[in-house]
Amino acid sequence: MANEITGVNGPITGWLDGHTYLIGLMAYPIRHSMSPTMHNNAFAKLGLNYTYLCFEVGNDKLEKAVDAIRTLDMRGSNVSMPNKKEVIKYLDKLSKASEMCDAVNTIVNDHGVLTGYTTDGIGFVRALKKEGQTVKGKIMTLAGAGGAATPIAVQSALDGCKEIRIFNLHDDKWAQAEKNVKTIEENTDCKVTLTDLKDQDAFKKSIAESDIYCDATGVGMKPLEDMSLVEDPSWFHKDMVVFDTVYAPRTTKLMKVAQKAGVEHVFNGIGMMIEQGAASFKLWTGEEMPTDYIKQIIDDEDAAKGTK
Amino acid sequence: MANEITGVNGPITGWLDGHTYLIGLMAYPIRHSMSPTMHNNAFAKLGLNYTYLCFEVGNDKLEKAVDAIRTLDMRGSNVSMPNKKEVIKYLDKLSKASEMCDAVNTIVNDHGVLTGYTTDGIGFVRALKKEGQTVKGKIMTLAGAGGAATPIAVQSALDGCKEIRIFNLHDDKWAQAEKNVKTIEENTDCKVTLTDLKDQDAFKKSIAESDIYCDATGVGMKPLEDMSLVEDPSWFHKDMVVFDTVYAPRTTKLMKVAQKAGVEHVFNGIGMMIEQGAASFKLWTGEEMPTDYIKQIIDDEDAAKGTK
Repeated sequence: MANEITGVNGPITGWLDGHTYLIGLMAYPIRHSMSPTMHNNAFAKLGLNYTYLCFEVGNDKLEKAVDAIRTLDMRGSNVSMPNKKEVIKYLDKLSKASEMCDAVNTIVNDHGVLTGYTTDGIGFVRALKKEGQTVKGKIMTLAGAGGAATPIAVQSALDGCKEIRIFNLHDDKWAQAEKNVKTIEENTDCKVTLTDLKDQDAFKKSIAESDIYCDATGVGMKPLEDMSLVEDPSWFHKDMVVFDTVYAPRTTKLMKVAQKAGVEHVFNGIGMMIEQGAASFKLWTGEEMPTDYIKQIIDDEDAAKGTK
Repeated sequence: MANEITGVNGPITGWLDGHTYLIGLMAYPIRHSMSPTMHNNAFAKLGLNYTYLCFEVGNDKLEKAVDAIRTLDMRGSNVSMPNKKEVIKYLDKLSKASEMCDAVNTIVNDHGVLTGYTTDGIGFVRALKKEGQTVKGKIMTLAGAGGAATPIAVQSALDGCKEIRIFNLHDDKWAQAEKNVKTIEENTDCKVTLTDLKDQDAFKKSIAESDIYCDATGVGMKPLEDMSLVEDPSWFHKDMVVFDTVYAPRTTKLMKVAQKAGVEHVFNGIGMMIEQGAASFKLWTGEEMPTDYIKQIIDDEDAAKGTK
């Protein structure tokens, strides 16, 4: 029944007291999330009087849950699947990127006025930046058109990406993909194309011409860790960036293929996950998340769980 | 901007993660409350995955706030002024003591079914018990008929107090006092009387005949710390119990008068405050609060603030 708690060595004062403000994460399922560990450790490290908790909320309870942000004067909330689009109608304002993505992952409550942001794309751009890479002026091949891919496309375009070539199956996300093309071309100078992923020749040619290949489909995530959209290392070239939004496992099949090709800059999604959190953290607290400290905690937790 | 946090010495794991359940305190004003410090330290000490936060909620927001308990699947909440009576209409069930008091200070959420309890009276009886005292078979003179006095009267009667003599001014609490008399006599074997506090002869005589004198009026609380309903030590006798529900200051004017009279068993309200919290804690977690550990933390906090 009792948990083994680390990091608490005596009476806690100055935190978790009557002045603590709540920040939520509303999604379903969600109890497995690393976000509470990330944010609560950052609050404790910086001495910020907030706490971050998960709430199991699907579309059915979403309106009331957003109402609770106002009623309980929460500082804000993250939202994740299946609420990222659905939540928009309950908010007062939207950031430019959220409007373009038609999705929200972060809500900020300013005295009852709720503004929706999407920090997933910011997380992608910042994760690249932290590795010395940039989207500015680059050609990117982007696999996927769902909840991860859309903010990546939008934010990359907003941040000066020259060309984004979206590849997706002609499935239920195709309409979103078409919308993304239109929205980005209307709002930025980025050139965007959409191609059926079944056209493997076009896919291969696009990757060969790209500076960045990003897989935002989720293919390669557990329990499908043996899968990759690209199986042949020869499709990659050494001086490109290969980015997988998946971070469980930490080294995906795609990453192994890229490494076999000799690609130097191969990244999983852990940096993006932390940086999207850091961007939300900044919106709520005005402070910079100590991301290196947080990454170490998450790596240690994973090692302890044997997920590495 | 940043707080000085004590008690955290490194990465927190096993607590404040995706599996943490929220417990609230809904009242207004409330940010000064010691309850979060009490409960969060008890959770951390025992390794229980809950956290306890204050929410500024008055009657206007109460219905939505109670709704949030269900929506966010909170484990429960405390409620305090001005919500203790008002909250009843939003709950599904009431404990016997809550029904008799027409008040609730604790809500337990069992999968969407909200039950109201009042642990204030339990806190009083347990605080006495911890000091080797009992209400069973005793005569008690009780000053007051408000939110603190009512649960004390009800729980004492439920726990076998022989006679309760309530004294109150003929003010807006008189109707509550009359109701208390009727309710207790209908539901228990305790004899209860109600007398106008202006009848000082009757008040003096009652105290002289009592085993326990309890002041639950709040007189003597800061900033009225120079006041006491009893000014003359000769009204007390040495072998009685004198109990003040006030705990700021820790030694009230009433307690000084009782000590001057040589009364050995003189208590402030800190034990009651902690024990009511421990009773709520038990309802939410099924576990015993480590009350000695918690009392030390609260004493140390007070010493640090110079309120002792």
